[in-house]
Amino acid sequence: MSSIWNGHGTRIRMCEVGTRDGLQMEPCFVPTEDKIALVNALSHAGLAKIEVTSFTSPTAIPALRDAEIVMREIERVPGVVYTALVPNMRGAERAIDARTDELNLVMSVSETHNIANLRMTREQSFASLSQVIALAHQAGVPVNVSLSCVFGCPMEGDVAESEVFAFAQRFAELGVQGITLCDTTGMAFPPQVARITSHAIKCWPAVQFTLHFHNTRGMGLSNVLAAIDAGARQFDASLGGLGGCPYAPGASGNVCSEEVVHALECMGYDTGVDLNALVDAARRLPDLIGHEVPSQIVKAGRRLDTHPVPADFDAIRERALARAT
Amino acid sequence: MSSIWNGHGTRIRMCEVGTRDGLQMEPCFVPTEDKIALVNALSHAGLAKIEVTSFTSPTAIPALRDAEIVMREIERVPGVVYTALVPNMRGAERAIDARTDELNLVMSVSETHNIANLRMTREQSFASLSQVIALAHQAGVPVNVSLSCVFGCPMEGDVAESEVFAFAQRFAELGVQGITLCDTTGMAFPPQVARITSHAIKCWPAVQFTLHFHNTRGMGLSNVLAAIDAGARQFDASLGGLGGCPYAPGASGNVCSEEVVHALECMGYDTGVDLNALVDAARRLPDLIGHEVPSQIVKAGRRLDTHPVPADFDAIRERALARAT
Repeated sequence: MSSIWNGHGTRIRMCEVGTRDGLQMEPCFVPTEDKIALVNALSHAGLAKIEVTSFTSPTAIPALRDAEIVMREIERVPGVVYTALVPNMRGAERAIDARTDELNLVMSVSETHNIANLRMTREQSFASLSQVIALAHQAGVPVNVSLSCVFGCPMEGDVAESEVFAFAQRFAELGVQGITLCDTTGMAFPPQVARITSHAIKCWPAVQFTLHFHNTRGMGLSNVLAAIDAGARQFDASLGGLGGCPYAPGASGNVCSEEVVHALECMGYDTGVDLNALVDAARRLPDLIGHEVPSQIVKAGRRLDTHPVPADFDAIRERALARAT
Repeated sequence: MSSIWNGHGTRIRMCEVGTRDGLQMEPCFVPTEDKIALVNALSHAGLAKIEVTSFTSPTAIPALRDAEIVMREIERVPGVVYTALVPNMRGAERAIDARTDELNLVMSVSETHNIANLRMTREQSFASLSQVIALAHQAGVPVNVSLSCVFGCPMEGDVAESEVFAFAQRFAELGVQGITLCDTTGMAFPPQVARITSHAIKCWPAVQFTLHFHNTRGMGLSNVLAAIDAGARQFDASLGGLGGCPYAPGASGNVCSEEVVHALECMGYDTGVDLNALVDAARRLPDLIGHEVPSQIVKAGRRLDTHPVPADFDAIRERALARAT
């Protein structure tokens, strides 16, 4: 039997993306002070990294138009990496000015998805991100590159693994500290995850790989486990399961932070996260965003959160025992 | 790396419980002819076993008050086992009269849960089921016993594994053909599943074990994989993910048949199920029950069900390419 089911204290680093990937999809604007309080709560819950915000154009993503204030005013808890999405040079300058610990750049390994989402060819994106990486290096700020559609493109279907690895190679050559392999629309499945992850870790040992899964087809947690089995130790997840899938209305988006932490802790992995504090933060989300969150742990509690017996339990038992005599 | 991620054609038998476990929780009465058509569609989709209905009191579960007619009038596809829930002697007589292939009996390994749900002590349930088993043996009808709360009780918390195995032993001694280990409220987690499943299969090799998981806390598919790793080859699942959890309103209930089949087929397991036919059947459920179903596959489709490019894609690409020159 596989040893994957027993973590034996293996450390898994959890990266929270709900504050960026989740909130940017919300139609309402979460007040700046609430965003700051949320990031502070997540910092104290023990997450390894928090994607705080996105330094995109305020007109493109008004929900995150307060990026500078949030990044400047959050508490900086030692050991936590405060990252932010940066689409271009202007965003990088803003993020560096706001003392962002790490710049998270994004492009897609699918040509169709890159053109549809970023309005550039992949080569144009690569050239633009190369400039951002050079700027970050000058400023001494680490860079992570999130590669979208690594496990499939919602328009093209499967993306050749050679294409994925070619971009990983090119970014590794540019000296990025981390690469996130993103399952953008929930197309990843365990043997594919195990194969791609183990190859990436073997080929670029100096790069910190993060795996980013969506639970769109119910395989999120199993993909996390397959990636751990292949050597991955760092995962993106979203508080409350915030962030849907634009291609499948009503379907799940990002894997849910408290579901992944709950499951990994049940299995004996050490996420370093205080699950109670994380669940408390997730339970405050509906007030912030005005609707329920997908999180199953918010709905059902932890596995040993027991329920009271029915009010008439003693009477039921008495009647049962009376029949026995 | 574990071999669990690659099925290599290993045969997994899928047992559909939506027609009983799912429909019995629906407030509406699904017309008898629609139930029959649904079971027939599931038969032709290649499921190994279908829990067609429940021979309970029509006043207790009016949604299944047409148990006899449904069981008598469904098409009997060779190779498919048509089972039904039977709570007592009266139910067993009705089920046998209606030519049910297998009687599925239920009791809980948690004393509190058994009293609260079945209004009997576990010993009273065991004595009653022993009589049913004797009747079934006389009639030459196989028996499966579903043990509730094997992986935890929503009121007691963890149930001692020695209690689980003591009941397995007693039913094995009574000569039952199968035992289903049920995670009644989604408390199971992979290392526990692997441990209990491997012990059960080793101790009672003549008993066909089925694993029954709920996805209440998002661990359903991972528990299926842990059980397969421990030697299990037969699983309950519910079409559309029908059947909620009375202890967690809004949370998932049974693992969803088409999600499990989709995932297992992606991983190279052979479920014998025609996924397209299964998804077609699931997509007809909302019309039958009057509300959407939890199934992520119904919402998002299979992983390679691609989407069209945006309507303005060609213009976006032209503009991008024009910038390049």
